[in-house]
Order: sequence, then structure tokens, then C-alpha cells
Amino acid sequence: MNLPARPTEQETREFLCELLRAFYGREWVSGTGGGICALNPDGHMLLAPTGVHKERIQPPDFFVIDTRDGSVVQPAADPALRPSECNSIFRAAIRERGAGSVMHSHALSAVLVADLATGANRVAVKDLEMLKGITGVTNKDVHLLPVITNTPREFELTDQVVAALKDERFAPAQAILVRDHGAYIWGRDPWEAKRHAEVYHFLFEATVARSRT
Amino acid sequence: MNLPARPTEQETREFLCELLRAFYGREWVSGTGGGICALNPDGHMLLAPTGVHKERIQPPDFFVIDTRDGSVVQPAADPALRPSECNSIFRAAIRERGAGSVMHSHALSAVLVADLATGANRVAVKDLEMLKGITGVTNKDVHLLPVITNTPREFELTDQVVAALKDERFAPAQAILVRDHGAYIWGRDPWEAKRHAEVYHFLFEATVARSRT
Amino acid sequence: MNLPARPTEQETREFLCELLRAFYGREWVSGTGGGICALNPDGHMLLAPTGVHKERIQPPDFFVIDTRDGSVVQPAADPALRPSECNSIFRAAIRERGAGSVMHSHALSAVLVADLATGANRVAVKDLEMLKGITGVTNKDVHLLPVITNTPREFELTDQVVAALKDERFAPAQAILVRDHGAYIWGRDPWEAKRHAEVYHFLFEATVARSRT
Amino acid sequence: MNLPARPTEQETREFLCELLRAFYGREWVSGTGGGICALNPDGHMLLAPTGVHKERIQPPDFFVIDTRDGSVVQPAADPALRPSECNSIFRAAIRERGAGSVMHSHALSAVLVADLATGANRVAVKDLEMLKGITGVTNKDVHLLPVITNTPREFELTDQVVAALKDERFAPAQAILVRDHGAYIWGRDPWEAKRHAEVYHFLFEATVARSRT
Repeated sequence: MNLPARPTEQETREFLCELLRAFYGREWVSGTGGGICALNPDGHMLLAPTGVHKERIQPPDFFVIDTRDGSVVQPAADPALRPSECNSIFRAAIRERGAGSVMHSHALSAVLVADLATGANRVAVKDLEMLKGITGVTNKDVHLLPVITNTPREFELTDQVVAALKDERFAPAQAILVRDHGAYIWGRDPWEAKRHAEVYHFLFEATVARSRT
Repeated sequence: MNLPARPTEQETREFLCELLRAFYGREWVSGTGGGICALNPDGHMLLAPTGVHKERIQPPDFFVIDTRDGSVVQPAADPALRPSECNSIFRAAIRERGAGSVMHSHALSAVLVADLATGANRVAVKDLEMLKGITGVTNKDVHLLPVITNTPREFELTDQVVAALKDERFAPAQAILVRDHGAYIWGRDPWEAKRHAEVYHFLFEATVARSRT
Repeated sequence: MNLPARPTEQETREFLCELLRAFYGREWVSGTGGGICALNPDGHMLLAPTGVHKERIQPPDFFVIDTRDGSVVQPAADPALRPSECNSIFRAAIRERGAGSVMHSHALSAVLVADLATGANRVAVKDLEMLKGITGVTNKDVHLLPVITNTPREFELTDQVVAALKDERFAPAQAILVRDHGAYIWGRDPWEAKRHAEVYHFLFEATVARSRT
Repeated sequence: MNLPARPTEQETREFLCELLRAFYGREWVSGTGGGICALNPDGHMLLAPTGVHKERIQPPDFFVIDTRDGSVVQPAADPALRPSECNSIFRAAIRERGAGSVMHSHALSAVLVADLATGANRVAVKDLEMLKGITGVTNKDVHLLPVITNTPREFELTDQVVAALKDERFAPAQAILVRDHGAYIWGRDPWEAKRHAEVYHFLFEATVARSRT
């Protein structure tokens, strides 16, 4: 109700900062971890900086990135900032799935639910009404999420991310889990990314809780 | 102490928004899930919209609904909004139990406590002082809550809800659990709905925690 | 640092309201449960009202109670309010232990730690640095807390409370657990009551967590 | 982004107060427990007072301490305040590891992860991306944290702390666990201490959660 249907770039920057503060409050982007991006009205990607306390990011701190090749169209106002290593992963979700906004979570629940994939490259989420919070998914679906293997550097995940995005088994998924690490979650715009982030974290927590009865 | 005994419609709308923000803070209405309603001074039902981030709802966003047939007496100010699918369920609690306000929770604790009903259509809550927080219940009661089966669409729950509301075994209950989904909780006015919501979620959490020792 | 060493009655009333809001934020006084009191400069007891949402209590909502007989010296400004049923229990802690402030918690951790007393009327807390947060207790002590049996009405707990307060085994305790219910926690003034409340809830949580490894 | 690269003493005092409020919100410094320090521009240590509610500390409440011998260069403005017993431990981290800021946590997760060291003086943290949040550590490392034995008085921990700081096995560690007590966590400045505090508490929680599957 607050962000207009066609937000300006400045409105998008402000909303991304608000989301980072909210995500930090839920411990999804602690310790400078995690990240976020969204498309601006020009179709470029606004990308948060790396290595900074995510709840403190201000609107001028974003990089404007060309989604085709990842190059910097406009740097952050502060020359000390560097763009997030999520660059190529975020662009893969934009390119392969038409995402308009992607968030990267370091939530403990994302790590613990990926642990349930022992011996497999996927986790099944089922029997939860909240599945309906993912666009295109019903509460009767067995919803498969890809679980990829962590790498020393974040950009090294890109090939696995692209493969998961292209994998037909995971076509309904709007999230990818990274073992020992967290999750990438996206939506067609920042509002849907927020909703999907809240829904997927609920699904992670519920699936972990049920596995421990 | 803040909401007068006979609030105006505007005061009720504002209080419902405050409750939604508080419920969101407790993760009971995440990911656009959950809902709320209350009667206005004319006896019509103020009903929150569906599919929106519940913590962002503003006073003009409510629909005014005829409690007899569910028809829209006055739509939300924003024409893009649609009324919650809880419409017929909320009206059943108003009609069958004299509720003046109903909230719908998507809390994880509501899902997990309903899991304890395996093989039965009820959960027993007992040995908790907080039972006294439900009007008419004592801390010596074994308090039975109905657990109904989830359906693809929310309005399809209505028949089961009505049956549970009419079931003598559940006469003291002011909540209904929906397996894999959440809970409906009501009171004679928004204040009592708030108190019952806080009390029932405590009872859910306590019952789940004790089942896991 | 905010409340002066010798607060006025008004400052005490305001601080008690602040504490109730903080306790509510931690889910220790949800659903209108729990309570608080403190002595005013005249040695009378400021007592919160019953049956109201504790986080909404305002300074004029307290009753002034004679600590000798529990009679109302000055009622709350709002004639609809009634004094808490904790009256006689709070006065017992003031009389027997020299408490200047007592809080009553409905925290889940208090219920779960009392469950560990199965077959006994006490819980032992040990091997925790936080024990030093209780005045007069060291981190080498095995700290025994009395666990009394819940009753239908709160004032019916008074005899058990008095017996526990007089029991030499529990002389170092500044809290009493009530099975299925919660805890009473006190200190020589509201600051110490706040510190003891935070410390005891930590001790409850730690003892429960360790019992579940 | 808020604290400049070379903060003044006043800015550092204000930031330490902000960190204490944030740490209190996460229940790392409850019940007057825990503490914090940072170097001022003169290379002296700003040290929080002991025995006070940490979330209420104001900028004038810090002591200025000579890091060489622990003597008070400038007391807190309020003569009733006494310097934290962490004095010699904090100075050891400054001297042995070049720390510019140290925090002391009483978090439950720190106690529970230290419990996992049964029979050993260390805990191994591994298979977690968040390890990269510790300067110099990779997500492939098995990160060993020293676990020392609690003592009746805090300053009595100093010899064990110094031994752990000098132990080659723990060279990558920027935290020390104290059994039954909590943790000391440091960084080269308050920002890094904040990041390390958030990261280490995540690592504690994850390690405890995984030990309970």
C-alpha cells in the first residue's frame, strides 16, 4: 500500500533499505551477510553493497548494474563501497525466471532445512497452507526446492544456480537453498520478493520443526 | 484503555490496523496471510482485504460487509483491493457464537499443535493457568479445540467451521484449528479477540513444548 | 540511570508502566496475564489492575494499597478497574522478604521449568554465571526455587506462598514458581525486580534447554 | 555507514551505547550482565560500568582506562558507578590480539554451545558460510574456539583468557567461550566487534541446533 505500482528509482531504493532493516530484525541478514536487489525503471539492477551492515544501508549506497553483463552503470555514492558478490546469481534469477527483485538470506532456518536434504539435492515442502503464498503454488502441491552445494566464493555458485533455475523439477520454486549457507528468494517485484521471503522462511521453520518431533 | 467501550467505526478501523501490526510482529500474519474483522456500530462487518501485506493495511482498506449474506455494503477505498476469503467463516463465528471480532492466524504454533491431533479431530489443552484467559474457561478444565481439515480454497472450510461451532463438545472453545493451516480465534469485541489471540497462541506453544519433552 | 534513587510516586508509576511494556514485549504478561507492584514513598503498595492488557496500563491506573491489610487507600482513576488478585501474594513478599517491588510472570519458560519439578516441590538451578544476578547468590550455589501447586483462584495461592517464603531451604530465592502457571519474582525496588526478572527468566530458559539435550 | 572511519571519543561513546541497546534486544546482555569496551582516539579504553542495566548506559557513564595497567584515567561522570570487572580481560584481547573493541555476552546460545565441549577445552565450528564473517576465516575451515572454566569472580578468568589468546590452536579465533557463563568477542574496531558478535552468536545457535537433531 506504500510502494506505488510503478515506483521511481528513489522509491525503490528506499523500499529496499526498509526491507533490509526488516530482514535484519528477523536475523536473516546478520553480521553483514545476505543481500538484495531490484530492477529500476530503466531495467537496470539496483544492487546492495557487500561487506557492510545490511540494516544500515542508505538509498545512495546501491550500485546500478547492467543485467546483461553485470557491469556497473553507476557506482554507489560512497567510493569505499563494493558491489555484492550476489551480482551474477541475482542476474541469473532475473534472466531465467523474470525476477524483478531477489533477496539473499543467511537465516538459520534456511541452513537447517537444507540439512534435511542429506544425500539428495532437494527438499520437499508439503502439507502447509502457506505454500499458497508462493505465486502459482497450491496447498496440495509437494513443493520441491533445489539444494546446491556451497563454494568458497559466492560467485562460484552461479553455475549450480543456473542449472537449478533451468531444472524442470524445480520450475515452481522461487527459491534456491545453498547447503550450510542460506537461500536466494525472488519475486516479480520487491513486494512479491518480500512476500516470498516471509513465506519461504515460514516453510523452512515449519519443515524443520516437523522433522524434529 | 485506548479503545473506548463504544468505539466509532473509524476508531475500530484504526484499532484493527494496530492489531494487524502487532500480530505481524509476532509472525501470526506473515507473507500476506491471516486476516481480521470486527463489527462496526451498525452491526456490519469490517473485513480486511486479501492478498496484501497485513501489517500495511490502513483504515480505508476495509470492506463493510452485510453479516447476513456476505454482500459488500461499502467497498475499500482502493478499487484494486478484494475482500478476504475469510468472509463466510468470520460471519459463521459472528452468527453462531455472537463474536464481535475474529482473527485468522497463520502462526507456526497453530500448525504444530494441530499436528498433535493425529487420528482425531480435536486437541486437548489442560493444566495451564492461561486457560482462564478464555472467557468462561477455568484452569481445571480440559479444553477441547476442534481441528478441521484444510481445503484448497479458504471458503471451502465453512461447512466444517459451522459444524465445529455447533458441536456441543466444543461449546467452550473460542478458536478452531485448521490442520496444516492455522487458527480462527474470536471474542465479543476486538479487545477480547486480542486477549484470546494472545492466550490461545500461548496455549498452542505450551502444548507443543510439553509434547516434545 | 533513569529512575532516581528516591523516586516520587509519579515516577514509580511511570516506571512500572514502562516495565509492563517491556515484559509484554518478552511475552511474560500476555493476554492480560501477569502483574506488578511497587512501594510508593509512603510505604503503600502501588498495584496494577486485573483483567486489562498489561502493556496498555497508564500511571493513573494503579491502586494504592495498605500493605498491612490489603485495603484500598486510593483507587485507580478509572472506576471500572479492579485491583489485581496478586494483592495478598505481593504483600506477603513485601512483609516476609522486605521486597519493594514484585512482578508476576506468565512466561512459558516459567511453566516449563516448573514441569521439571515432577514429584518434588522445588527446582534446582546451578552451573550458571547468571545466578550472580540474584542478590546474595554466587555462581557456585545450587539455587533452590520453591514450586507450589496452582489453585483455581490466585489469592488461594497465598498460604503456599507464605510457607515457601518462610522455608529456610528457599531463603536465598527471590522467586517462587507456580506449577502450570508462572512465577512471582521480587527485589528491594523496581530496578532490582527488573534485574531479577531478567535473570530468573534466563535461568528458567537455560535450565529447560539443558534438560532437553 | 553511521560511524565515521576515525570517530571522535564522543561518537564512540554514543555508538557503544547503541550497541548495548541492540545487544540487550537480542538478550545477550540481560539482567545487567555483559559488557563492552572500545579504544578512544588516545588509545585509552572506554569501559562500561558494572552492575547497571546495560541498555540504559549513556555516553558519560564510561570509564577511560589506561590499557597498560588498567588504571582509571578518567572516571564515569556519575560517582556511584564502578568500572566493569572485564577490565583485565578486555585489555588482554587488546594487548594480545590488537583488538580495538571487545564485547562480553551472556547469551544462552553461548552457554549451550560451550556445553558441547564436555571433556574438552574447545568447540569446533564448521560447515557454515557465516564463518566467512570472521576476519581471516573461510567457510572450509574447522574453526576452533577455546572454552575456559568459569570462576567465582570475573577477573579470575584472566589467566585462562591470556593462555587461550596465546594458544596457537586458537589463533584464528576472535572469541573465547566461558563455560556456564558466556563469551568474549572482539574486533579491530566497534564495527568489526558488532559483526563478529552477530556472526559468532549465529555460529553458536547453528552449532547447538545441529547437535540436537
